[in-house]
Amino acid sequence: MQTKEIRFASRPSGIPSNENFQFVDAEVPPLQDGDVLLRSLYISVDPYLRGRMREGKSYVTPFEIGQVIESYVVGEVVDSRSPDLKPGDVVSGQLGWRLYNVAKAKQLMKTIPGVSPTTALGVLGVTGLTAYFGLLDIGQPKQGENVVVSGAAGAVGMTVCQIAKIKSCRVVGTAGSNEKNEYLRNELGIDATINYKTADISSALKAACPNGIDVYFDNVGGAVSDAVLPLINDRARIVICGQISIYNADRPAVGLKPEPALLVHSAMMRGFIITQYWPRFAEGISQLAQWFKSGQLKHAETIVEGFENTPNAFIGLFRGENLGKQVVKISG
Amino acid sequence: MQTKEIRFASRPSGIPSNENFQFVDAEVPPLQDGDVLLRSLYISVDPYLRGRMREGKSYVTPFEIGQVIESYVVGEVVDSRSPDLKPGDVVSGQLGWRLYNVAKAKQLMKTIPGVSPTTALGVLGVTGLTAYFGLLDIGQPKQGENVVVSGAAGAVGMTVCQIAKIKSCRVVGTAGSNEKNEYLRNELGIDATINYKTADISSALKAACPNGIDVYFDNVGGAVSDAVLPLINDRARIVICGQISIYNADRPAVGLKPEPALLVHSAMMRGFIITQYWPRFAEGISQLAQWFKSGQLKHAETIVEGFENTPNAFIGLFRGENLGKQVVKISG
Repeated sequence: MQTKEIRFASRPSGIPSNENFQFVDAEVPPLQDGDVLLRSLYISVDPYLRGRMREGKSYVTPFEIGQVIESYVVGEVVDSRSPDLKPGDVVSGQLGWRLYNVAKAKQLMKTIPGVSPTTALGVLGVTGLTAYFGLLDIGQPKQGENVVVSGAAGAVGMTVCQIAKIKSCRVVGTAGSNEKNEYLRNELGIDATINYKTADISSALKAACPNGIDVYFDNVGGAVSDAVLPLINDRARIVICGQISIYNADRPAVGLKPEPALLVHSAMMRGFIITQYWPRFAEGISQLAQWFKSGQLKHAETIVEGFENTPNAFIGLFRGENLGKQVVKISG
Repeated sequence: MQTKEIRFASRPSGIPSNENFQFVDAEVPPLQDGDVLLRSLYISVDPYLRGRMREGKSYVTPFEIGQVIESYVVGEVVDSRSPDLKPGDVVSGQLGWRLYNVAKAKQLMKTIPGVSPTTALGVLGVTGLTAYFGLLDIGQPKQGENVVVSGAAGAVGMTVCQIAKIKSCRVVGTAGSNEKNEYLRNELGIDATINYKTADISSALKAACPNGIDVYFDNVGGAVSDAVLPLINDRARIVICGQISIYNADRPAVGLKPEPALLVHSAMMRGFIITQYWPRFAEGISQLAQWFKSGQLKHAETIVEGFENTPNAFIGLFRGENLGKQVVKISG
């Protein structure tokens, strides 16, 4: 049996382009005991994959040239040699960008019945867990505190904003279009938003945070972070979840040094990777699902159709084309 | 009765100069119940005082123009209206730069008998506590880990280096002269040192830390920190204790952004001020005194003689003139 797959053709310099990806016809290997054959329904494209396209030491193994790109994929079981999954089951897992994947059943998770399977790539998946543990475990927001979220209209940022509201914080988000900001305010109840592309970030942030900033959840880095630092309060917590503004840079980023502000305010800055919370994933999913079912937590997504558009959907992340989770619909 | 005192005459721009200080003759106020009259023996001059000379929000109240400068002072009781202290007792406390101070007895601490009273300004005082809690509580060094200390020949840095050795770490220090570095290696047993004024810091640090850096205790900031970031290990802890390289800058510091390294390595950076550990001071002093008495922890100091040289001793800190604790001997 044949599949199509997307391989990593060359390392990007700057923003990735279609040339960095290669579509290849390949043979689907036969199932071994414990395996299932999956037809891809939805593929998740994520900013952090840019890090895997870089050579050298990083927190995830770099992609090798010629390797099939991997990310979270939702698929339907079409054949099974595992007692745990049967044809028709819908599951998610870390899989290749392929029309058909062969995978170990025990490395897959069934999607939650009664909700869109794409939530497994968003609020009820690793995206939601990243927001949940990053904000609550590292940011430790307290009732009434001021939380600023950069990349607030992205999949993680949007979930962070909502969890901070659930925790009775005042939430200010930055995003790159008026439409995104209106969505954050009107649909998600975020207290204030800033369009970082059109506003003077420093003065807008100062006006939006008259009582300073207690928690900064950073998905973006760069100019927004430089504007945050002078406004942090004593004992502020800065969560470094992503730095999308500089993922495509070829040189180390230079800018306002945070050390003086951290010193003066006895403040803290911490990076994390979601896999370190693996032992607590069940706790996180359970809480996220409860909020989702009660309507306190919404899932927003931007869907691009067609396997052939997977690289474009990924590249679009760096132009801010997505509101919420960027997903590619393969079939379904 | 008359005293001489040193008032804050004007806010420095850049490195402080003698013009920023004014020597004034003043009347010693009469003692109230609970007060003692102290003759100054030793005055501590500390880099962080530069922060108090700046206007605006900071972690310690800024000095007002015309105010007497304050820091830790060791003095001898010459008159007492407190049952807790009697003439001849030697105490330390946060006092004015004066020949004679009147102070509340309960805000003073007796120096430890049998050791030089200047240790109350160094390893057995706030300096030692800063090293103790900053390294152990924030840095959390584990046996065999690699600890880098900037400003390693300063009062705090030197104590950090020694505590890290007591905790069986491999310790690399940076300091600004070969004499200081020889002292660190030969007298204190530090594993490797770098003269940041003559070495290529990046390559020297890389050579000195073949297994990366787990804990960075930063007293200095600037170029040393920029060289540390590319070498940190996963879960590294960066303790921001001071930033002497930029205290005199008139603009916010710009340099290598630490966020990408913190993200990739799930690492942490935290500033602190020693007063937040107040409830644990007794624990800290007790442990420091035990190490000091057993010879595991040494106190080094640079003594300048004469009250009139107090501003110069302070200014000299920014030229790195001190090895260990910089103290001014007033009488004694």
